[in-house]
Amino acid sequence: MLPDRVRIVEVGPRDGLQNELTPISTEGKLQFVRKLVAAGLTQIEVTSFVNPKRVPQLADASELITELPSAENVTFSALVPNEKGLDRAIESGINRIAIFTAASETFTQKNIGMSIDESIATFAPIAKRAIDAGMSVRGYVSTCFVCPYEREISKDRVRDVTAKLFDLGVDEVAISDTIGAAVPTDVLETVSFVLEKLPVERIALHFHDTYGTALANVVAGLELGVTTFDASAGGLGGCPFAPGAAGNLATEDLVYLLDRMKIQTGLAGQPGVDLGKVIEAASVVARVLNRQLPSAQWRRLQADFAADEV
Amino acid sequence: MLPDRVRIVEVGPRDGLQNELTPISTEGKLQFVRKLVAAGLTQIEVTSFVNPKRVPQLADASELITELPSAENVTFSALVPNEKGLDRAIESGINRIAIFTAASETFTQKNIGMSIDESIATFAPIAKRAIDAGMSVRGYVSTCFVCPYEREISKDRVRDVTAKLFDLGVDEVAISDTIGAAVPTDVLETVSFVLEKLPVERIALHFHDTYGTALANVVAGLELGVTTFDASAGGLGGCPFAPGAAGNLATEDLVYLLDRMKIQTGLAGQPGVDLGKVIEAASVVARVLNRQLPSAQWRRLQADFAADEV
Repeated sequence: MLPDRVRIVEVGPRDGLQNELTPISTEGKLQFVRKLVAAGLTQIEVTSFVNPKRVPQLADASELITELPSAENVTFSALVPNEKGLDRAIESGINRIAIFTAASETFTQKNIGMSIDESIATFAPIAKRAIDAGMSVRGYVSTCFVCPYEREISKDRVRDVTAKLFDLGVDEVAISDTIGAAVPTDVLETVSFVLEKLPVERIALHFHDTYGTALANVVAGLELGVTTFDASAGGLGGCPFAPGAAGNLATEDLVYLLDRMKIQTGLAGQPGVDLGKVIEAASVVARVLNRQLPSAQWRRLQADFAADEV
Repeated sequence: MLPDRVRIVEVGPRDGLQNELTPISTEGKLQFVRKLVAAGLTQIEVTSFVNPKRVPQLADASELITELPSAENVTFSALVPNEKGLDRAIESGINRIAIFTAASETFTQKNIGMSIDESIATFAPIAKRAIDAGMSVRGYVSTCFVCPYEREISKDRVRDVTAKLFDLGVDEVAISDTIGAAVPTDVLETVSFVLEKLPVERIALHFHDTYGTALANVVAGLELGVTTFDASAGGLGGCPFAPGAAGNLATEDLVYLLDRMKIQTGLAGQPGVDLGKVIEAASVVARVLNRQLPSAQWRRLQADFAADEV
C-alpha cells in the first residue's frame, strides 16, 4: 500500500549549488528560490553556514536569508556545520537548521575530521542551542548504504546514528545515499531495519542519481511507507567538472514519477508541485552555469526543442 | 521473491542505431557487436530488414549478418517488418527474427499504416514462413502503457495483442514502453494482468528511459517474476537530434542494478555480463557518433575523467 501523499524537501539551493564553481549572485539564488516557491515546494534548504573561506559560493548565506520571500506554508532551512555557523544562522533569522553526520567512520573522518561519536557530541550543543532559540532541527546521515572508502555500510550503524540524531532533538533525519550507489534492495533492507525502531514519519530519504537508481530507490522507500523525499531542481549537485554528471535526484523527475503514480505532492487541499515550474526554476541556474542539466525531464525537453528545430 | 537470474536482450545495434543519422560502417557495427559478445551478452538483436530506402542506416543488414562472429551460446536476431524483409532475412542465414505490432490503434496506424488486427494478419504468414524455415520468432508490442496519441492504454488490449502474437508461434513477447513514460505502478498493473493468462517465462520487458523511470520499472518487473529485459548498450536509441536525450534503458545501467541486487546476468555456470565491457562496446558507437551517451554509467565515467583532469 503506497502512501497517497508525500512531502518533497527541495535541497537544490544548498546541496545543488554548494559544489558549483561558477559564482551565482545572491539575486540569482533568490530568483531560483522564488521560482521554487512558485512551483509549490514547501520545504526548501536554501544555503549553508559553512566557512565562507572554504565555500565562497555560499558566503552570502545571511544576506540570502534576509531577502527570502515571505511565503505562507513554506519552511526554509540552512545547513549548519558548527557553533560559528549557528551564530550566523540565529542572527539571520532562519527558523530551521540542518546538522549532519555519516554512517561511515572513514567518510566522517575525511569529511569533517572527526569520528561519528565526536560529530554527535559536537552537534549536541548546537542542536540544543538552536532548539532553545526556537528553531527546529533536521539531521542528515551521509553514506547510509555505500561508502566510497568502506564500501558496504551496516544497517545497524545507520539505525544507531539516526537514533542518536533524534536524541539530540532533531525532528527528521534524511537517510542519505551520498554517492548514489544504492539499489532498491539496499533501501528495503536498511530502511526497513531503521523503521523497526524509529517512526516512519520522521524519516526522509535523500538519493543521488549517480548510477541512475534514484527513482527506483524512491519506489522502494514508498513501498516501506516513507513519505518524505529530498530532491534538487534540475538534478543539480553533480560533479562540477562534468556537465552531464548526475547529481541529486532531480525534483522534476521525482514529481513526474509521483504524479503518474497518483501520489499527491502538495499540502492537503493545495495543488501539488508543478513539474514545469520546477524546470523553470532550474533553468535560472542552468542559464548562469551555461550548462545542460542532468535530469531526465530536462534532457527530454532539450530533445523536443532540438527535434522541433530540425 | 526476486528471480536469481535474468536474461538481457541487447537491442542496441538495432533499436539503438535505427534512428541514428550519422552513418556507421558495417565494420563499425561488427566491432560493436563483437564487443557486446565479449561483454557476455547472449541475445543480440543486430539489425532490421526494413526498406533500405526508408532506413538507409540499416541497408547493410544482410552483409552484417554474413559477417557476424560465430559465438557459442549467442543468439543473434533481426527485425523483420514484411514479407520482403523475411526474404532477405532467410537469405542472410539468421535464425531468429522479430516481428512487431502495438497496443495502440493510433500508433499502429501512424507507424505502419494499418490497424492492430491487420498487422497481426500481415505478420501471421511471415511468422509461419519463418518457423517453417527453421527460425524462431520474437514479438514486440509497442506502446503498452502510454501512447503519444491515445495516452493511456488498457491492459486488456496489451494482453489481447500479446496473446495473438503467441498464437502466431512467437516464443517471446517484449511488452514495450515505447516512449518511456511508464512508472512502476503501470508495470505492476498491466504486466500482472498479462501474467494472469500468459506464461512469465515468455514475457520480456522493454523500457525506454525518457523520463528516468526505466530502472524503477525493471524492479517492478522483477517483483512480478519477469526474467527477460531488453536494453541497449550506452542507452542508444534516443532522439538523434539531441545528444543527451535518453533512449533505451542502457545495458550498463541495468547490469549495475542487477549486479548490486545480486541477480545473475549470465547463463548458468557462465560469468555475468561485464559492465565495463558493455561500456567499451558502447564507446565504439560513441566515437563514430562523436557524442556523449545518455547512460548513467557513461556520464559517471565522464565525470570521473573530468575530475581527474582538474
